[in-house]
Amino acid sequence: MATNLLAPLPDARTAEVFTALLERPGVRIERIVSQGQVTPTDAPYDQPHDEWVLLLAGAARLWLDDGSGERDLTPGDTLLIPARIRHRVTWTQAEPPTVWLAIHLEES
Amino acid sequence: MATNLLAPLPDARTAEVFTALLERPGVRIERIVSQGQVTPTDAPYDQPHDEWVLLLAGAARLWLDDGSGERDLTPGDTLLIPARIRHRVTWTQAEPPTVWLAIHLEES
Repeated sequence: MATNLLAPLPDARTAEVFTALLERPGVRIERIVSQGQVTPTDAPYDQPHDEWVLLLAGAARLWLDDGSGERDLTPGDTLLIPARIRHRVTWTQAEPPTVWLAIHLEES
Repeated sequence: MATNLLAPLPDARTAEVFTALLERPGVRIERIVSQGQVTPTDAPYDQPHDEWVLLLAGAARLWLDDGSGERDLTPGDTLLIPARIRHRVTWTQAEPPTVWLAIHLEES
């Protein structure tokens, strides 16, 4: 059976919902549903592996500590977040919800 | 810079367009744009590795030689195509174009 990433969506009003989709040596695929959540200013993500993200629905704003500043993401936008580049989600659309596909490129 | 997978789209009216997005040990991500193309009946795909697909736009029909028959795919639908399961795309919507994200889970 096919699994749809856009419907039905879990209720993420109180907290982002992370759903593991597939895990293999070197790669981990997950869906993230956000409804207004942002990354705390004092706790940016700082990952030891590259991450490739694709915005599937909604809208978001992402800050990367690479000198490029903030960028707006709309559906279809993809971005490679290199390992050890600190980053924060600074805004997510709450309604309709924001849906991300995140591919973690971990060491296998 | 963010790259958008949905716009602009290449012209795929005469042939499907495959665009490599990212390649790492164990994983290869590509976008496929289809505009009515199907897999020839006598030449199904038969891959030595698992493939995870996500339909991003348009519509498609996929046949897997696993006894489950054909299935329709709409945006947001995902499917794991196991290695060595023969499969064919039996229909793709031409207008608006059909856009796939394919993640090839190759041996690293």
